[in-house]
Amino acid sequence: MRSVIVGLALATCSLSGCIIHVESVQTDSESHRFDDTDAIREVIALQARAWNRGDIDAFMEGYWNSPDLSFSAGGRVTYGWRQTRDNYYKRYPNRAAMGHLTFDDLEITVMEPGVALVLGRWHLERDKPIGGAFSLVFRKIDRSWVIVHDHTSVNAD
Amino acid sequence: MRSVIVGLALATCSLSGCIIHVESVQTDSESHRFDDTDAIREVIALQARAWNRGDIDAFMEGYWNSPDLSFSAGGRVTYGWRQTRDNYYKRYPNRAAMGHLTFDDLEITVMEPGVALVLGRWHLERDKPIGGAFSLVFRKIDRSWVIVHDHTSVNAD
Repeated sequence: MRSVIVGLALATCSLSGCIIHVESVQTDSESHRFDDTDAIREVIALQARAWNRGDIDAFMEGYWNSPDLSFSAGGRVTYGWRQTRDNYYKRYPNRAAMGHLTFDDLEITVMEPGVALVLGRWHLERDKPIGGAFSLVFRKIDRSWVIVHDHTSVNAD
Repeated sequence: MRSVIVGLALATCSLSGCIIHVESVQTDSESHRFDDTDAIREVIALQARAWNRGDIDAFMEGYWNSPDLSFSAGGRVTYGWRQTRDNYYKRYPNRAAMGHLTFDDLEITVMEPGVALVLGRWHLERDKPIGGAFSLVFRKIDRSWVIVHDHTSVNAD
């Protein structure tokens, strides 16, 4: 039942507001751990929905808005939320390039309170489909789970 | 001066023994944090030295010896210490393929006690040089820092 409530809450309020709300009803560490996983899963689901309506700015809300955000891809490491957003805009200049994004095989591990590792696979359905694997490090900052590091690689074949 | 002691200790005893030894002389959380970074840096240095003498088994000591170790590269995620070792042996069947390994631009962030993120660049000097970026998630397990997740990508150019 709780997962239904989470879904409704996220559909009707801001991301950070909803995560705070959901946490406030938790009382023990076991359910707290489950909620962290739910909250992280929702951040990722929100990103996919934002991407698929062509809204890169909303997609970027999943990332830590900090110069210390780090993003690794294709052997390069870049830093900063603005740089990351700029790179997305350059790489995906229009809806055709953005395609339709799906995430699969999500594996969420809360390693310590406030730190989680998320592995998964991504796929862009478009004229020239592309996909691969990602590793996301999430931290809980100001009561919201955000991606502080993203390493994305493309299928080698 | 402490870093010299760490180096000497690691040269004369097993990895886990040395990390325990170094910790035992720490008294406050600030110095403890510094030591974690030192210990992680040494794990990575030991890996590079092992690789460059052609010793993949010693290189593998830096990884968590668990079926839950995860390794992402080229869009694929594989699991398990044995699988990771097997993949290294397949991909680098001889010293010529292994080349000479160097790590650069190491950035070590201890996010919470017992969990660290390490970013860096790798380069193999060999007939066909290759290099890229890596993201390592370290955890302190049984008093030793080990890599629990590795995402490695190759330079895109």
